[in-house]
Amino acid sequence: MSVSAFDHPFLSGLVGDTETAAFFTANADIKAMLDFEMALASSEAAEGSIPVLAAERIAEVCAHFAPDMEKLRIATARDGVVVPELIRQLREACGPEVGRHVHKGATSQDVVDTSLMLRLRGVAALLEDRMEKLDSAFADLDKSFGHHVMMGHTRMQAAIEIKVSDRIRAWCEPLARHRARLEAFAESALVLQFGGAAGTLDALGEEGVVVREALAEDLGLGNHAQWQSQRDRLGELAGLLSLITGSLGKFGQDIALLAEAGSEIVLAGGGASSAMAHKQNPVAAEVLVSLARFNAAQLSGMHQALVHEQERSGAAWTLEWLTLPQMAVSTGASLRLALELAGNIRSIGRD
Amino acid sequence: MSVSAFDHPFLSGLVGDTETAAFFTANADIKAMLDFEMALASSEAAEGSIPVLAAERIAEVCAHFAPDMEKLRIATARDGVVVPELIRQLREACGPEVGRHVHKGATSQDVVDTSLMLRLRGVAALLEDRMEKLDSAFADLDKSFGHHVMMGHTRMQAAIEIKVSDRIRAWCEPLARHRARLEAFAESALVLQFGGAAGTLDALGEEGVVVREALAEDLGLGNHAQWQSQRDRLGELAGLLSLITGSLGKFGQDIALLAEAGSEIVLAGGGASSAMAHKQNPVAAEVLVSLARFNAAQLSGMHQALVHEQERSGAAWTLEWLTLPQMAVSTGASLRLALELAGNIRSIGRD
Amino acid sequence: MSVSAFDHPFLSGLVGDTETAAFFTANADIKAMLDFEMALASSEAAEGSIPVLAAERIAEVCAHFAPDMEKLRIATARDGVVVPELIRQLREACGPEVGRHVHKGATSQDVVDTSLMLRLRGVAALLEDRMEKLDSAFADLDKSFGHHVMMGHTRMQAAIEIKVSDRIRAWCEPLARHRARLEAFAESALVLQFGGAAGTLDALGEEGVVVREALAEDLGLGNHAQWQSQRDRLGELAGLLSLITGSLGKFGQDIALLAEAGSEIVLAGGGASSAMAHKQNPVAAEVLVSLARFNAAQLSGMHQALVHEQERSGAAWTLEWLTLPQMAVSTGASLRLALELAGNIRSIGRD
Amino acid sequence: MSVSAFDHPFLSGLVGDTETAAFFTANADIKAMLDFEMALASSEAAEGSIPVLAAERIAEVCAHFAPDMEKLRIATARDGVVVPELIRQLREACGPEVGRHVHKGATSQDVVDTSLMLRLRGVAALLEDRMEKLDSAFADLDKSFGHHVMMGHTRMQAAIEIKVSDRIRAWCEPLARHRARLEAFAESALVLQFGGAAGTLDALGEEGVVVREALAEDLGLGNHAQWQSQRDRLGELAGLLSLITGSLGKFGQDIALLAEAGSEIVLAGGGASSAMAHKQNPVAAEVLVSLARFNAAQLSGMHQALVHEQERSGAAWTLEWLTLPQMAVSTGASLRLALELAGNIRSIGRD
Repeated sequence: MSVSAFDHPFLSGLVGDTETAAFFTANADIKAMLDFEMALASSEAAEGSIPVLAAERIAEVCAHFAPDMEKLRIATARDGVVVPELIRQLREACGPEVGRHVHKGATSQDVVDTSLMLRLRGVAALLEDRMEKLDSAFADLDKSFGHHVMMGHTRMQAAIEIKVSDRIRAWCEPLARHRARLEAFAESALVLQFGGAAGTLDALGEEGVVVREALAEDLGLGNHAQWQSQRDRLGELAGLLSLITGSLGKFGQDIALLAEAGSEIVLAGGGASSAMAHKQNPVAAEVLVSLARFNAAQLSGMHQALVHEQERSGAAWTLEWLTLPQMAVSTGASLRLALELAGNIRSIGRD
Repeated sequence: MSVSAFDHPFLSGLVGDTETAAFFTANADIKAMLDFEMALASSEAAEGSIPVLAAERIAEVCAHFAPDMEKLRIATARDGVVVPELIRQLREACGPEVGRHVHKGATSQDVVDTSLMLRLRGVAALLEDRMEKLDSAFADLDKSFGHHVMMGHTRMQAAIEIKVSDRIRAWCEPLARHRARLEAFAESALVLQFGGAAGTLDALGEEGVVVREALAEDLGLGNHAQWQSQRDRLGELAGLLSLITGSLGKFGQDIALLAEAGSEIVLAGGGASSAMAHKQNPVAAEVLVSLARFNAAQLSGMHQALVHEQERSGAAWTLEWLTLPQMAVSTGASLRLALELAGNIRSIGRD
Repeated sequence: MSVSAFDHPFLSGLVGDTETAAFFTANADIKAMLDFEMALASSEAAEGSIPVLAAERIAEVCAHFAPDMEKLRIATARDGVVVPELIRQLREACGPEVGRHVHKGATSQDVVDTSLMLRLRGVAALLEDRMEKLDSAFADLDKSFGHHVMMGHTRMQAAIEIKVSDRIRAWCEPLARHRARLEAFAESALVLQFGGAAGTLDALGEEGVVVREALAEDLGLGNHAQWQSQRDRLGELAGLLSLITGSLGKFGQDIALLAEAGSEIVLAGGGASSAMAHKQNPVAAEVLVSLARFNAAQLSGMHQALVHEQERSGAAWTLEWLTLPQMAVSTGASLRLALELAGNIRSIGRD
Repeated sequence: MSVSAFDHPFLSGLVGDTETAAFFTANADIKAMLDFEMALASSEAAEGSIPVLAAERIAEVCAHFAPDMEKLRIATARDGVVVPELIRQLREACGPEVGRHVHKGATSQDVVDTSLMLRLRGVAALLEDRMEKLDSAFADLDKSFGHHVMMGHTRMQAAIEIKVSDRIRAWCEPLARHRARLEAFAESALVLQFGGAAGTLDALGEEGVVVREALAEDLGLGNHAQWQSQRDRLGELAGLLSLITGSLGKFGQDIALLAEAGSEIVLAGGGASSAMAHKQNPVAAEVLVSLARFNAAQLSGMHQALVHEQERSGAAWTLEWLTLPQMAVSTGASLRLALELAGNIRSIGRD
């Protein structure tokens, strides 16, 4: 299916991003969920909570396990979450002896939220890498054209001349702050979720906290008490994604306005029109604006999901699933397009 | 890819809707775009604007044309819209003689927006059908349990007893209004878009208006002067979709609260928990709330897209593509879940 | 206080609207609430549900009643709604004999929602009047300049020349549809709310429905069974308000872009700059865009409030209070500014 | 006027906050703008850019200057910003000799954005203070009732028993993170805006940067190159405000659900009903949910304003004015209500 333009056979070429989207395929999610189960078994075995041989067998099975996707789909429709059926299949694959040691003391939210965090780690690294590249691209533009002059505009009116450097600074500086924000986020907020049924690690008794520590260590995530009804980290991330696309939307809008005026920019790579052969449309510039406005709207959905009642809100949680992956891909696409657009600026300003 | 939960191999079982999604596949879009080109050629042939034989050949080709999807993807990334490349391929398939008569006087937006309208016609019929079924389901519940009493609640506090009928009325009545709204929309707002390069039908001269009339007739859409920068009909539809999901979100929230209290409802079909075998989660009820909140957030995106500058805004238009299909599928899914949930109510209230 | 720019001593000159805001003062609300109580007493007296003399006395008191506002404020903080304290003061003013007949069978939501509907009637008339004037202003522009040519722009690029008429049509036509939408809304959706404690008119017994009919007649509102948890009419109105501001945002954006290009429009009345004496800022055009985007964001808040649990949701209801009045005033202001802007166009296009 | 419930004579008792609102009165804004002008003159005098005597006279006048508010209102409507008229009046008050030294090298945005930053400093301190108090209130609850048990709920269904401490932790921990976020924000993002006409400090020549440094020092704001078209700091703050209200919305929703179930909480201070004397409505809990959803919707408006074209966007800037003050007051009110609600919990859980 291709309800979303991000998943669409041809629209995704425009608005999507293959690399970011790779973190949100069903297979990427399943792989990360199996990584959780594998690490859980290993951590529990180390504490003597399950047999070492069981943990080894679980690791072997997880390494190659391909669940029955159609059954996952049917069960997710019934259970509201994929985990019960995934665990059932995984236990079956492990056999009855070992199977009962799978997922011990964990609950659906531990698996789903930890899988998300593992994948967000990759997303953060990807975005950081692109922001660094974009920063270089802006620096290159500044080197080539920063000394040029251009007309400064306030309130959509010619004001006074500015240097092209001044304008580039308005594109660059927020990016530096976004990178610092993302780095701070990655350091503090990529945390393991592990709490069991109602978040209290009941089923593991006193060893619960030790298992959690080992599990966090093993997965390379922060070790923090369960946070299943505390969604502020995800709300913060959503805000950060929208800050990035918002700043790039400003870049896009600036370029589109320069392209409309025509005299102060030379752009390569514009799009064709089906009716007018003479046109060179600044497509990437426009789409940067679209993605900025899209993420700004999604952000309100993610913040509505902060009202996460009791120990686990199916309503609020599902709302996150509908929203956050698209925000991440939108941000990846926005950076991809900004890089392309910056690279297509052949000249800006007047010597 | 499966960035969106609506397109996701297993999450779509929960939040998606196969029938509604079918209107938003690339193939459904391409088919509707080819329908436009076929009908355009036929209408132009009838006015003598292109040769009849050309129109016949175009119809033949369109009937079985399967475009090169990868090329569409690459070109959409460049052009911002699929049409130039689709037309190029179509012309190629028609051969040079006939090919030059393809798409005469039309522009990308004519093709894309008309394709959307053709498919929204199907979506509207599907939603109407489901609303009718849901209305019947509520009527059945009312017949079975309407005479029961239940505690009325205001401000999350027990107030006084009401009849179950009173509560069902609060679920039913908005539905009746939504059906009237959707009917009025379908009658007046499903209109052909046909304007050519800048909306003035320039390339067809005096025959432009006649061709438009025939084209509208042929496609079964309303005949209206081009509206390429007037997006209020789509903003209205988005509002209507969100009204539907909002009302069903109220139904879901009511059921979830009844299920939590436990004494006034018996539900079949609850979801399983991976940690607690005794639980029966009212999954459909919760997801109705998620979809309501999702659509409410998307709606702001669609209304941001009303600021559609000049003759055609790539930025605003792309924002619609990112938003409207998901709103439609969310609404289809919401009706599907509401039907399922209403059907799972084994008893409500007390005798 | 002046937290909102709409209420702000100097910012309201820019973004506010005195006439629309007049419907949302505390006094306007109180007057409408007293109108409800007066009409309720009179309708109940006609049915013999309370003594005629009591109804007459209630009418006398209501006609001049000025509540203690500070006490209303304190009580609203405690009760979540102004009505209990307002009724207490009103009863006190009527004396013990008559006072106990005040508000018979009604509940807070009846008073608040009916007051809102009474005032929305005025708002709708005001907006309709302004849309009509704006329509005339556009017609005048069309008469004067419609035959001029101007460069059509698609995707922020010069496309082909269009007539100024073509552009004006894109501003006018949505307005005509908005007027039809508003008229349909005013005819069907301005309805009395009257249901008593939990919406069932319990306290009035069999006479409840007759009283409601008389009350609706008296107040000039539609007679409809209570709708206290069915907020779709308000969600629809919010959507309509945002459609209006969205279309006018397109007008504003178009003018701002014309003003930036400079060669195809002559505007009077631009704003001054504190730093650059030569500038003439198209302030009204920009603010039209701001108000469009503001309302688009608010709209999601109003649609979140559709999830109105049980018989009355304090949470959802309060969210409406925070949102709808500003949307109405934003729309009034947008029409005011659009009229001003249209009137300031001295020339558009080229002869 | 009282379009906004935050400014409303009686509704502000419920949803408003006097202390936070005090930072957003016209007078508070004017005072902060005069502080800017005073500090600017003093910094410029120190650099020899204007006469010392002029700076002293400007300081004297600013200390007691009360502008003609009606003229400010009229001029703001025309200019789109209050500053040109405020400066005109201020210059008049200083007399022609000194007046021409007022506002030297500055532009409207310098005055308005710096005034905002000065006042946000106060807002941040106020919110921090209240979060600290709320943290203590939660700690007190934990001391009194943390050892109690209560039923944990996942997906609106009884799951297993948890300790009251576990629930309180879900309210407390996000608060600690919000405090850290706010502290980091206050340290890095409360920065002077000073750039002159198009942001380049043109009018001050080489001394521009030195004046800016002195000005920042004098006002106690961070010294940073002008950021007039870089709105990410404000977008970040808006996100932080919405994170706070979102977390408190979760607290409110939890309390409302406990109050509905009735057996695990004893609350003092509930609201009265105009129809049912027996009810005790958990008003503050509900309003916390309303404010969370309100801010989540506003947040999308603030992020739409990130698309701030060219050197200064009147459209985007005005959108911030319409949105940010209400978000701040909503957050202040949310903390006020959470404190009240926490203080009204007489018992929670079972011994």
